[in-house]
Order: sequence, then C-alpha cells, then structure tokens
Amino acid sequence: MPELRHDPISKRWVIIASERGRRPDDFPKQADTTPAGFCPFCEGNESKTPPEIAAIRYNGSGPNQPGWKVRVVPNKFPALRIEGNLDRRGLGVHDRMNGVGAHEVIIETPKHDLNMCDMPVSDLEQVIRIWRDRLVDLVRDNRFKYILIFKNYGAAAGASLSHPHSQLIATPVTPLTLTGELTSAKEHYHEKERCLFCDLIQQELESGERIVLCNDQFVAIAPFASRFPFEIFLAPRYHNHSFAEISDAMIRHLALALKEVLLRIRKCLNDPPYNFLIHTIPNVKVRPKRTSYWDTIEVDFHWHIEIMPRLTGIAGFEWGTGFYINPTAPEEAAKYLREIEL
Amino acid sequence: MPELRHDPISKRWVIIASERGRRPDDFPKQADTTPAGFCPFCEGNESKTPPEIAAIRYNGSGPNQPGWKVRVVPNKFPALRIEGNLDRRGLGVHDRMNGVGAHEVIIETPKHDLNMCDMPVSDLEQVIRIWRDRLVDLVRDNRFKYILIFKNYGAAAGASLSHPHSQLIATPVTPLTLTGELTSAKEHYHEKERCLFCDLIQQELESGERIVLCNDQFVAIAPFASRFPFEIFLAPRYHNHSFAEISDAMIRHLALALKEVLLRIRKCLNDPPYNFLIHTIPNVKVRPKRTSYWDTIEVDFHWHIEIMPRLTGIAGFEWGTGFYINPTAPEEAAKYLREIEL
Repeated sequence: MPELRHDPISKRWVIIASERGRRPDDFPKQADTTPAGFCPFCEGNESKTPPEIAAIRYNGSGPNQPGWKVRVVPNKFPALRIEGNLDRRGLGVHDRMNGVGAHEVIIETPKHDLNMCDMPVSDLEQVIRIWRDRLVDLVRDNRFKYILIFKNYGAAAGASLSHPHSQLIATPVTPLTLTGELTSAKEHYHEKERCLFCDLIQQELESGERIVLCNDQFVAIAPFASRFPFEIFLAPRYHNHSFAEISDAMIRHLALALKEVLLRIRKCLNDPPYNFLIHTIPNVKVRPKRTSYWDTIEVDFHWHIEIMPRLTGIAGFEWGTGFYINPTAPEEAAKYLREIEL
Repeated sequence: MPELRHDPISKRWVIIASERGRRPDDFPKQADTTPAGFCPFCEGNESKTPPEIAAIRYNGSGPNQPGWKVRVVPNKFPALRIEGNLDRRGLGVHDRMNGVGAHEVIIETPKHDLNMCDMPVSDLEQVIRIWRDRLVDLVRDNRFKYILIFKNYGAAAGASLSHPHSQLIATPVTPLTLTGELTSAKEHYHEKERCLFCDLIQQELESGERIVLCNDQFVAIAPFASRFPFEIFLAPRYHNHSFAEISDAMIRHLALALKEVLLRIRKCLNDPPYNFLIHTIPNVKVRPKRTSYWDTIEVDFHWHIEIMPRLTGIAGFEWGTGFYINPTAPEEAAKYLREIEL
C-alpha cells in the first residue's frame, strides 16, 4: 500500500509509493525515452489494460472491446489505491495515512500518433466531456479532497507512453498549491467583494499585451509573473468555480481554445514537451454538507488550466527558494504565440 | 534590468531575466550538455571572469592572477543585479520591483576535474569558510532579505559548466519556501517551547532507521516525507539558527559529513546529478534592528543543508499540486546509503 506522509517543516504531503520500490540500480543514467513497440493503449489491446471505468463507444461495441473513441482505465501502476480507509496516524512530529485515492488514465483516441492539437474539435470535446464526467463521479467519494486532471506530453515532461493520454489523480488531502490559490482568492474577496481571477482577467484583457487568444468564453494569457517561458493560463472569461459544472456548450469553446493554444505552442516552439493541468475547486467545497471554513461558495475560486512547455530545467535556486528565473518576458512570449501563423 | 514580479494567485515571486531575452529558437530540443573545451574557471583564465570579490590565495599571489585555492566572482550572466534601488510598484493586481540582488559564483578549486567528494577535507573546509564569509558580508546590505548558497552538480541538475563551483543568490524578498519553514518552526515553538528541527533530529536519532550518518556535530537524515528518492537533510545536531555563525571548528565537522554524504551518493547511485542548498535564517532576523514579527530569535530556525539527487523527473501532477510521488521509501534509501562500502 502506498503511504501519504506529511513533512512538518514544509507542511507538504508526499506519496511514498513503496510498492514501486525503486532501488539504486533502477534509476537510469539518461532521461527515460518513450519505448517503441507494443502499445497497451492502441485499439485491439484492450485486454492489456485494467478493465475500463468509462468509455465513449460506437453503437454496438461492448466494454473492453475495440470500437471506442475515448477510454478511461485505472492506471496499471497507480500512485494511490482505490481500496481501503485512510488510517491516519501521528508518529511523533510526523503524520501519515494510507495512500488511498484514484489514479486513472484517459486514453484520448484509438490513434497512436494523433497529437491532441491535430484532433478534430468534436473529438477533443469528447475528451473534455469525459474529464468532466469522471470529476463529477469522483467528487461523490467522501474520502477524496481533490481531483487533479493533467496531461504529460513528451518523455521529458514525464509521459512514459507516447499514445495520446491524460491522467486523473484523486487525493485524500487538499494539495498545498490549491490551498494557496484558494487563500489568495478568499483574501481578495473579503477585501474587495470581487473574484481575484475575474479582476486579473479583466486587467489583462484591457492591457492586451499578455493575451495569447480570446474567444467568446475563454481567454489564454501569458501570466505577468510566469515561472516558465511560454507558460499559459487558460480560463473561462466569466466566473465559475468548478470545472465539474462546465456545460456542453462551454466545452465546445474550451475545445476550440485549447486546440489553438496547443497548435500555437507546437508551431512556435518546435513541438516541445509540455504539462497541463486543471485547477478546480476542492471537493469539500462542492459537496452538499460543507465545512464552515468557506462561506462564500459563489466567489471563492475560478477554475483554470495551466499549460507549461518544458523548455528550461529546474536547479538548486528554484528548489531552495520556490523562486523561478524566467529568461523570456511573458509579453514577448504572448507576442510570439499570437503572431505565429497557423 | 531584470525584474521581480509577484503572482497574486500563488503569491510567488519570479525573476523575469528579460536581458537573457530567450526567443523561441533559443531553447534546445535536447537537454543541455556541458560544453567541452575552454573553461573560464580554470587557473590562468582569471581574466575571463568578472573581477574577483574574494579569494583564498597562496602567499604572494595578487587578485585575478593564478595562485588561488578558492575564488569568488560575480556571475557573468546574473539573474539579479547588484546596482540600483528596488523601485517597488503595483500594477493593478500585480506587483513588481527591480531585479536587485547579488549573484556570485564560488569556484571551489583550480582543478577542473576534481569532484567535491574527492577534495581533501581541509580544502572543503576552505570552500565552506568562504560560503560563510560571503554570507556574513552580504547580510549587511539592507536591500537583501535572503541569501541562498547552492550547488548544481551535473548538466541535468542545471550546471552549465563542469568545473567545480557553487553559487550564491541574494534576493530582496524572503522566498516562500523559507517563509513556510519559518512559520512551521514558529508555530511549533509557540506551542511547545522547543525547536521543531531539534525535536525532529532527536526523534530520528532515537529511531535510527532514516539516519545516513552522524558525527559529533552533524547528522544526515533521509527525511520521513522525502520528495525525491535518496534526498538528504544534513543539519547541526545542536541548535543554531544561522549558517553565518558557524565556527571554524564546526566547519571541520561539516566538511567531514558533507564529504562522506557526497561519497555515499556517488558510490550508491553511480555519480548522479544533484542539487544541494543551505537554508539559514533570513537576514531581517539577524540584523541588530529587528522587525517585531519575531521575538524568539534563539529558537525560530535551525539551519540545514538539503541535498537532492536528480533521479526522477517532475511531471504534471507535481506541478499541479505541490505533491510529490517518491518511489523509494526513505528508510530503504538510508539503508542503502549507510551500507554502501566506501
């Protein structure tokens, strides 16, 4: 069973995936590269993954058979396990609990070589719809405090298989990053009675210099204090706290925006590895029985997607401080991305 | 002039090093590798670095000439600049200030190929002494809130030159990582009137299962909630808040411990890239005129060194949550490191 452990100094939770049990010799000298050859995510190889949790299928095809468009399966090597209870315990200054959670893989298409940015918009809509549906389903499990949907593209960004896929991890504690964002949003609201994210989006739209693209419903911004070159913040223009509430109509606008952003990144930066992830409101806030901690449910968060091309490395200074050194001004990055011809 | 920018959502400061001005074509497809050939840090090439700030020299040799043992020079491509004032300004929801700070390189030896773990202990003592002396010097500058001393070893850990060197960056704001550690230490003290770090070290010494080594003055621990496989926390066994106060006698013990830890890492993990960094008390706490924020100067921090072999990558989940997945239990890591024959 993996274990969640808490560091009393940084207050960070860590997953000790001891079952993966990597010994000194198990770490390759070079960066992993995606292995060629057999692909368990390709159509026809459904038996090589754990049984599917959800799928969008052509009429008449049965579960774990060919004939699917999008398929969700448990991760074969999960960081967290779905069974069991948390068994929280203190050990002196330390704290631990069982590594209970969910770890799912969303296989985005049967086509092994189809880049997400080349998908037809209607196919991308189906992927986004299944992200939403998995979120709506998992929010009901009281053991889970947060559900992260994310994508690693390229071996250097952590993708161990090249077949197009995204992932979902449900954790039994609210991650520090989210707690921080929620606290900022709450403080801003208590002071100004406005959403911090809405204010930021409004300011960026007025200035325009960091806007990468904007459609009726979504805006993509190179953040003023970008950590990484060509980092992008993609958010609904109008206030909404939860990705779980996205409508099918909104999904169409999101698919259009996401596809265009990814196309611009590929063209401008020569198909770089990237990570993206969805930040939505933690579960505890959307369940009927709420804690008293938050009393302003309508305004306390604004869901968004963070996209991070992996162009620079992280070294001692970044690990030591949480500060980042970014060699490309976001105004320049936005201009390059805006002006590249598609 | 580089610029410091503040993100209102994550509350993180970022250095926008716009003078480095990297365009889309400037990012290599593959990881950087250390270039071979000419080395500006080698003896005889003193004119190829900016003029030295400090050095330990053989009798009779002059500044910026051969005849040195350790040499400190400004970074030729600094992330922050020493000249100027901060000019703090708000821009709507954003905040910025000039990128004022110090960025120095400590050239640890004239020998191009000498690994830090192969240095004679007396030479390593000189490196540590010059770290301390630079810290003592820079603490006096009221513009600097924090000074980070760190080392990147190996191209994959961010070292752009292979000649043995460490770095120092002084920042005009206290980094988030340090604020977090100080807050944890303060809360623990207010509750228990004891140092959190002292409690943690005591608990680990009693258990023993995560101890890598221990001498009269220093202890190396695989942290209970290690983020990375084979991560190490190296700290003085007895309470001290500032690395600036380390005595020459203590430096001897630190050199012995650091050398042994690095030897064990190299032998056990086949000479991996690594980062290490020193966490000491922020400047504002050690200047005669203190803020009122802290009133328990004796107990509010316990300086330490964090050593991180770079064996695994960081992907979407880590960026999205601040959570880490560590595939090697620290108890196992400590055992491997303890038992490897040197």
